Order: sequence, then structure tokens, then C-alpha cells
Amino acid sequence: MKLGLDISGGDFAPRANVLGAILALEQLPEDVELVLIGREDEIMPILKEKGVVSERISVVNAPDIITMEDHPTRAIPQKPNSSISVGFELLAHKKIDSFASTGNTGAMLVGSIYKVNAIPGVIRPCITSVLPIVGGKNSIILDVGANADCKPDVLYQFASLGSLYAKNVMNIENPRVGLLNIGEEEGKGNLLTQSAFKLMKDSDDFNFIGNIEGRDLFNGKADVVVCDGFTGNIVLKQAEGIYSIAKDLGIKDSYFERFNYENYGGTPILGVNSDVIIGHGISNDIAVKNMMCLAYDVASSELTKKIKEAFT
Amino acid sequence: MKLGLDISGGDFAPRANVLGAILALEQLPEDVELVLIGREDEIMPILKEKGVVSERISVVNAPDIITMEDHPTRAIPQKPNSSISVGFELLAHKKIDSFASTGNTGAMLVGSIYKVNAIPGVIRPCITSVLPIVGGKNSIILDVGANADCKPDVLYQFASLGSLYAKNVMNIENPRVGLLNIGEEEGKGNLLTQSAFKLMKDSDDFNFIGNIEGRDLFNGKADVVVCDGFTGNIVLKQAEGIYSIAKDLGIKDSYFERFNYENYGGTPILGVNSDVIIGHGISNDIAVKNMMCLAYDVASSELTKKIKEAFT
Repeated sequence: MKLGLDISGGDFAPRANVLGAILALEQLPEDVELVLIGREDEIMPILKEKGVVSERISVVNAPDIITMEDHPTRAIPQKPNSSISVGFELLAHKKIDSFASTGNTGAMLVGSIYKVNAIPGVIRPCITSVLPIVGGKNSIILDVGANADCKPDVLYQFASLGSLYAKNVMNIENPRVGLLNIGEEEGKGNLLTQSAFKLMKDSDDFNFIGNIEGRDLFNGKADVVVCDGFTGNIVLKQAEGIYSIAKDLGIKDSYFERFNYENYGGTPILGVNSDVIIGHGISNDIAVKNMMCLAYDVASSELTKKIKEAFT
Repeated sequence: MKLGLDISGGDFAPRANVLGAILALEQLPEDVELVLIGREDEIMPILKEKGVVSERISVVNAPDIITMEDHPTRAIPQKPNSSISVGFELLAHKKIDSFASTGNTGAMLVGSIYKVNAIPGVIRPCITSVLPIVGGKNSIILDVGANADCKPDVLYQFASLGSLYAKNVMNIENPRVGLLNIGEEEGKGNLLTQSAFKLMKDSDDFNFIGNIEGRDLFNGKADVVVCDGFTGNIVLKQAEGIYSIAKDLGIKDSYFERFNYENYGGTPILGVNSDVIIGHGISNDIAVKNMMCLAYDVASSELTKKIKEAFT
């Protein structure tokens, strides 16, 4: 298995990314190879400094960089020699099994949709985030930002995609899917959630448990929380904001520490033909290591194959 | 000034409500009278038990109760002798200057719109919630649930209403109004926030500072945060959920304690012709006392008059 990693993306590139790759190499099974995509003349000295000589690490030179300022839809055609563009070329030609980046999220989404394409039947690919649950488990929420405006059938598909992810990657048996809403009863909500509820309530594709409210996000009432990308992004960033305040206030608590993005490293883009993982722009080496471990988990679970089977 | 209070609403009625009224009486100026609306035969024994004999407290008998199970739009006509129906009758006939309840929020909204009516020019009345800011100040967010689906011009009006509230009741000079969105730059967001931004950016009606993100909700970047009622309700309940978890985990921190609803007691319904205050259903006596203090602050600020002037 070959996992590709963008070395030029994120705030602490290239160093944190290379160090994260080295850490991941130690943790991942022997048959996993890492393909580092970025500026060879920057990557090699770091590998040398760390004394890393391994047949399991290779480097593909990509001298250009898509920055956070580049326009998502234009960046890939404008910068064909960037690490993100080269990564998607390798992925599209199956030279790597997975591509992970902490760089420009918009460009990663665009690359996913235009270079590896949505799985036939999937209306809108989406991204998830982990919700740490009191007691130790995790739930997921999706979409968290890829699709600001959604139709009810798109939410229905998010429920399918999230359920497949929870089952195959998180090993949750028969994941409970909740629709994020204002009020628990059927009929509550805005026009979108009212319609989505009707579509979801008799579903055979996933285990729908009904509406859940904002207060239930972290209590484990649902394993998979479905919402439009606008709402999901607000939820995610609100949680990040509260975590950041708790940290600034010196609150030390093992539960709150689980809001630290470092623990998760990244999230797959669900619903595209190959494995694409995106990480937080502020990722340090630990976060990059965890992103590569997630990339391995996703690849070895054959999630993408299972999504294709479910949507045909 | 006469402030009406529903004694039959909320989970701990009638006792917590009567006790809250007694506490409020001690705190409010001498010229403030409280009108307790509910079952006289339940109210009088509690007043007697507490030895409260005051010309500043009167009781209006309302034997019936609108419960949380009653349908919001049907409850008021179906139960004319309920405390909420009687309260709105008193308010509509100016027998009281303000009406506060911890009962069925939907019925309170319906009563506000159909018994005292929206202020001419206000498309959709709305409700706010306090956002505790690190360092001691508070911001507000609106709408938090009265309007699940909003058009851009409705968000524009929320900005005006919130700005007037922040200025007149919270005494914030030239309140900074932010639009809750995913991304800071103009052009980010869903169709609603993209359009609302265009309406708001050149406004002379309030001090628009642009988009703010979920992570900025509690850092005081904006004094007034504007969003549709679906998003606002999710934000509010997510904060409640995290507060509840922090409490369960035994985290003691003066900042997190400010998420306790007791401190605020309630919120006015903004944009109707008379002062209506709604409180949390789980209000105890402290929360009811604070709701009545808020009712006093809103009434003495002449907020409703100022909103009418702004919208004519």
C-alpha cells in the first residue's frame, strides 16, 4: 500500500510534514510505503538530518506550492507542478492508493471532484469531523463545510456515507444516524430538515434514530450526525473556539483535551473514487502522523470500494 | 411600572416562580409592581408562607395552564383562562407593561405575534441569547429559534434589532454587528449569508463589521451576532451541552459558570409592540428573579419605543 503525503501544505511545512511522515512510518505496518510529494531539495535534508534511510519512503519532486491564498478552483490547473496537483496526478493514475494534505482545503476538494471524480450516484462528496463523546467513544458529524447549501436528498446521502464510514473505519456496529435539528419530534426544524426527516425515517440504507439537538452533539446519542455543511462548519468551529478558550484558561481535563485536532489528524473526503484525506492547516508533526494513520485505516478498510458498492 | 409574570409556566411552577418574584421584589426599585398571573389558590399560600404582604405584589387568577405538550398555535384560543392567555390579555390592554413567562415558548411567540402584534415594518420578530465573552463582557446572538428559515432582509432586520438591544439595554456604544458565517471574506457562506452580507455591508442602520466564524462566538469579536434561527438554536444548545458536560466533569471555572442560564433568566422577543420576555423552562427561583430584572431593564430602557421609532 502506498500512501501519498503533500509535504508543502499547511502552516509548518515542510518540516512538520516530513517529521510526521517519519513518525507514521514507525507506527504503520511494514508493507505500507509513504510517498512524499514536495520540494525534493527541502525534503532530503530533513530525512538526512533524522538519519532516515528506508525503502518505505520515496520522494516525488513537486517544486510549486498551492498556498492558502490561491483560488481553490483555479489553483490546480494554474499550478500543475504544485504538490497538490502532482498528488492528484499520482492518485488518478493509481501510482498511490491515497493522498493526504494539510494544504488548501478548497483545492483538495476541487482536486477530489475534478481529478478523481465523485463516485457515480453520489450527488455531493462531503467531509466529516470527529465529535468526542464523554466516556471515550467518538461520533462523527458531516458535512462540515464542503457543501454550504444542501437539498434533502443530499442530506440523505450524507447519512449513508457517514454510516459506511462509522461502520467500516470506526468499527461501529449498525451506527445510529441522527439528523441535527431544532427540536426532537418529526415536523420540527427548517424546510431542509423537515424534508430530510421524511426521506430518512423509513430508510433501509442506515439506522435512522430521528432528530438530535445541539445539546446532544457530545453525549453520544448518535454515532453519525447529519447536517448541511454550513451548520456543520459552525458547530465544528464553535467547538474549536471553546476548546481554545478552555486551554487559554488553563483548564486541564482529559475530555476537553480530546477536542484537540492533533488527535485526529484529518478527515477523508467521502464519496470520491479514491482515498483523499485532508488535515488541519495548523497541523504539527503529531497531527500529520495521525493523518497518515487515518489514511492507512481508511485504505485498509476498503471504505471507498464499499461506498461504490452501496451507491451502484 | 407593572411587570407581569406567568406563575404556571416552567418545570418548577408555581413555587420557583413565586419565590423568584419575591426575590425580584427585593431587588427592583420601589415603584416597580409585580403582577403574578396563575392559580390564586396556589400562589397565596406560598406568599403567606414567606410572610410577603406588599402593595407591590398583586395576583390575577388564571386557573388553566398551557403545558409544554400543548400546540403553540392552538393553545391560546383553546385555553383562554390559562396564565399565558390571561397575561397577553393584560398586556394587550396595557394593564401590565411587560409579560414574562418560563412556559411554552411557542405559545409565547404566537401570543406575541397575534395578541400584541409585530411592530409595523418588522418582518419577523426574533429572540436572542447571551454569549458570555472571555474577560467579563457579554455579546448576544439572534435569532435563536423563532425563525428556522430566514430570507436575507430578515437577517438584515435582526442586525438592526440586535444592535438596538445591545445599545439600549446592554449599554454598548455603537455595537459591532457580525454575520455568523463559514469563512471571513465577502463571498463566503451559503446563499443566505452571501446575500445578507451584500445587504448589510453598506448599512447605515448598524455598525457592520463583516463575517465572523464559529470560533469567534465567545471571543468578543462582535457584540451582536446575526444568524437564522436554525443555526442560532444549534449554537445555543451546543453551548448548553458543553456547559452541562463541563459541570458533570466537575470543571469549576468562573468563565464556564457564565454559561449557566440562571444568570440571564430570559430573553425579550424583539420586534413586537409590547415587552414580552421568555425564560428557560427549567428556571429555578434565581433564574425567575433574573428574568424579572431583565424585564425591568428592557422596560426602563424604552427599547420597544426605540425599535418602533427605528422601523417607522
